[in-house]
Amino acid sequence: MGLDLGANLRPGTFGVSDHDAIVSINIFIALLCSCIVIGHLLEGNRWVNESTTALVMGLITGAVILLATNGTNSRILVFSEDLFFIYLLPPIIFNAGFQVKKKQFFRNFMTIILFGAVGTLISFVIISLGAMGLFEKLDVGPLDLGDYLAIGAIFSATDSVCTLQVLNQDETPLLYSLVFGEGVVNDATSVVLFNAIENLDIGHFDALVLLNFIGNFLYLFFTSTILGVATGLLSAYIIKKLCFARHSTDREVSIMMLMAYLSYMLSMLLDLSGILTVFFCGIVMSHYTWHNVTESSRVTTKHTFATLSFIAEIFLFLYVGMDALDIEKWKLASSSPKKPIALSAIILGLVMVGRAAFVFPLSFLSNLSKKEARPKISFKQQVIIWWAGLMRGAVSIALAYNKFTASGHTEVRVNAIMITSTVIVVLFSTMVFGLLTKPLLTLLIPPRTGPNTSSLLSSQSILDPLLTSMMGSDFDVGQISPQYNLQFILTAPTRSVHRLWRKFDDRFMRPMFGGRGFVPFVPGSPVEQSDPDSHLGTVAEAER
Amino acid sequence: MGLDLGANLRPGTFGVSDHDAIVSINIFIALLCSCIVIGHLLEGNRWVNESTTALVMGLITGAVILLATNGTNSRILVFSEDLFFIYLLPPIIFNAGFQVKKKQFFRNFMTIILFGAVGTLISFVIISLGAMGLFEKLDVGPLDLGDYLAIGAIFSATDSVCTLQVLNQDETPLLYSLVFGEGVVNDATSVVLFNAIENLDIGHFDALVLLNFIGNFLYLFFTSTILGVATGLLSAYIIKKLCFARHSTDREVSIMMLMAYLSYMLSMLLDLSGILTVFFCGIVMSHYTWHNVTESSRVTTKHTFATLSFIAEIFLFLYVGMDALDIEKWKLASSSPKKPIALSAIILGLVMVGRAAFVFPLSFLSNLSKKEARPKISFKQQVIIWWAGLMRGAVSIALAYNKFTASGHTEVRVNAIMITSTVIVVLFSTMVFGLLTKPLLTLLIPPRTGPNTSSLLSSQSILDPLLTSMMGSDFDVGQISPQYNLQFILTAPTRSVHRLWRKFDDRFMRPMFGGRGFVPFVPGSPVEQSDPDSHLGTVAEAER
Repeated sequence: MGLDLGANLRPGTFGVSDHDAIVSINIFIALLCSCIVIGHLLEGNRWVNESTTALVMGLITGAVILLATNGTNSRILVFSEDLFFIYLLPPIIFNAGFQVKKKQFFRNFMTIILFGAVGTLISFVIISLGAMGLFEKLDVGPLDLGDYLAIGAIFSATDSVCTLQVLNQDETPLLYSLVFGEGVVNDATSVVLFNAIENLDIGHFDALVLLNFIGNFLYLFFTSTILGVATGLLSAYIIKKLCFARHSTDREVSIMMLMAYLSYMLSMLLDLSGILTVFFCGIVMSHYTWHNVTESSRVTTKHTFATLSFIAEIFLFLYVGMDALDIEKWKLASSSPKKPIALSAIILGLVMVGRAAFVFPLSFLSNLSKKEARPKISFKQQVIIWWAGLMRGAVSIALAYNKFTASGHTEVRVNAIMITSTVIVVLFSTMVFGLLTKPLLTLLIPPRTGPNTSSLLSSQSILDPLLTSMMGSDFDVGQISPQYNLQFILTAPTRSVHRLWRKFDDRFMRPMFGGRGFVPFVPGSPVEQSDPDSHLGTVAEAER
Repeated sequence: MGLDLGANLRPGTFGVSDHDAIVSINIFIALLCSCIVIGHLLEGNRWVNESTTALVMGLITGAVILLATNGTNSRILVFSEDLFFIYLLPPIIFNAGFQVKKKQFFRNFMTIILFGAVGTLISFVIISLGAMGLFEKLDVGPLDLGDYLAIGAIFSATDSVCTLQVLNQDETPLLYSLVFGEGVVNDATSVVLFNAIENLDIGHFDALVLLNFIGNFLYLFFTSTILGVATGLLSAYIIKKLCFARHSTDREVSIMMLMAYLSYMLSMLLDLSGILTVFFCGIVMSHYTWHNVTESSRVTTKHTFATLSFIAEIFLFLYVGMDALDIEKWKLASSSPKKPIALSAIILGLVMVGRAAFVFPLSFLSNLSKKEARPKISFKQQVIIWWAGLMRGAVSIALAYNKFTASGHTEVRVNAIMITSTVIVVLFSTMVFGLLTKPLLTLLIPPRTGPNTSSLLSSQSILDPLLTSMMGSDFDVGQISPQYNLQFILTAPTRSVHRLWRKFDDRFMRPMFGGRGFVPFVPGSPVEQSDPDSHLGTVAEAER
């Protein structure tokens, strides 16, 4: 069965005739199942998380396959950038936007942007400069300015997926929103940076080029966001107007899935940042669209998106683990086995310094702008933020492959060394830093015991008077006495923007696009119940 | 972004660098959304169904793309057998098994096997013989015995997906289970037949070869079924034993999805019939596994599987529609434009005769074996069964491509003619027969009015005393007075098998694998509620 028809439009071309491909799929699915089962059994273990399990299983499988094929069969395991950017990343980022606690996210919006954009740029500059200064002593090979800048961009990309698994949204909402929000903006920033560097004319680097670069960056940031918001609103409008539920709930779920993916692919088509687009599409969909569908569609979408994201994450780590053992690049680099290790050590050091160089100063800046009553980022929390963003993952690998390979082969020695160094950095940071994160967290922020108490940070944020007043539908301005100091000047805009937004949302957006309390009546659907979310469980709905 | 890394394991290789590919994905997703919206708006229309909409939209898009590229860009639209067999077919067939009304299906099991296996063989013989007799007069080109047998297998494969959309499980349960059940067995039979013919040594065709062929067919049938049942039971056992719900419902849903797909891929790996395997895996999962998960996982899986199947179906018809305009094969065949049309007419005639040749005699046989009280297949119903199976779809196209192409090009004229004829048969049967099915149904079986009455057939089957007693947990044998005639001899085994099965299921299977009433207690899950299915709505749970 199965002939290679040589078609372009083949989302998933294994060649059924290719027995090896079917074997690969079987191995992968079986491994995914095992990872889920093992991850379940190890749940509650203070060291291991799901990503480490998947990574280790990927490494073991890669080793077994290498041994079984006498070291010849490595091509099966090569990392595919397309697989990553077209299939695995969208569900993960969309689900992150869909499940994110919007209040936390937007309350810390300025800090997140500060960390994600400015922080990534600081980290990028430090890693690039450091690489320029330190690599030359190692005699790696011919690297030009563009290569060093690319290295800066590659290793500025944190692994937000891994971070997500380490922190818990319910236990440490502030940390989670900061680290994860930063991760999303960081992903977008580093990919945009990388592309900008690829297109940069190194010869004519002056103020105009820099200005152009900054303008381009801001353009990408805003158009990507607007595209995501627009797609989300369109889905809300379509579902609200057409009342799909009259005939079939499957149509609702289909439209939500397809339009979320469409937002990502449209963004790719327009050369924007798909990551930002699909993230904001997720936020808008959870704010409007999700409230317009029937109850069963709500349960379905919430769990389906979480499940798809979960599978994609495990798949990703398995894949990275298996890819680490691709022998071709190891063979080339092995003529000087010490060099990749030395390089990796330097890069890891630069990553740690580069991250420290923005986390602590920017936290200080962020704390300065905060009112007395609002929770500041404590030093312990700063350490956790610094640590949680040290991991490097699939984005780094994808960018490194893009930069240092040509048609899948790492033939030039310097390229092979760079790829192997990237793999070492990713493996080391994910496994060692990843393994140490849970113990570090429990050391710095001891978890409260008892079933019903949320953790320190969670209760802090609920006690926060500003947040409490924000949670109500109306925003009581009279409670806040004017304070003529730096804090007020920096805080006031955020508050009034939020108040204006609530008014605008209630008066124009919700009546048009639906949302909580503005759901059209659907005969036969249990929407009119007082608390439709009562049995959804996992995510604290009050925070949405 | 994006380099072609030349990897083997790339489930979905578009080449991100390839702008055309991204355009294609965008067009496809936008079309899928449009089909869903248009399908929703046309719901209730007596002529149109979703598959026709998708087919027409695919044709229009194909035409627009052809015109836009001045007839050069046809390769984007080529049908990929792998895409069909690896990605689109599994969710459709699995969902069919998952949502099928098991009682109806197993009650008509013998009839379904009769229609699906024996009927397909009869149809295969008639089409093969007819083609042998009639094609030679047209001077198509050199076709040998193997080609004629392959043509018989290709056009014996009904399009169960299209049929599914035309009939309604709740309104006409008997017809639905017969036509659809036949469709699944038919898909499996024709694919197995086709493979058997490909491996057949035409030169030495004798009784031993025939016996070998039959033995092989039975082996495939049973091993495929057993594999599906085993995978389903394994998933039930794992989920029951490990209590995934303690930590996360996403793991349950992931395991169900992955193991369903694993059953299909394992079947492909072992050269069995994936269609049969995944169908029975779906049945077992809905009987055991589905009852072991939390309520939100139940809602999620039910709707997710339905949604994935729904999207795959629309995708499929869009794809077939777009592929129909692939110009390369039309160019080759266009040297004699009348031939494909004449061939298609002959094939359509043979299909109609071949189907009539088994539906009416086998219905008679099936009616003979039925007790007085049980509903017989009336003549009107026989006509509908005959009609609903006339459509030819993606399986035919996939098999035709497999047989009549080499590396995606239809260079030999006879091959080009056969492919174009297949496309014409599929388009004509799906559109014309598909369009006429709804009116035919309403003509032959007028729908009952009123919101709460089920249709004629549905109420018939509920009134059926045998079924009513079967629905209870205990099977009252005393009610049935022995009748010493043909009917009893043929019916008795089915009844006692069912009684034994119920006993076995209650005593051994359910305590081990879970299922309704044997669900392990999961803290925090609403499983212990008296009627967990009360709000699931769409599917009549009492029938499960």
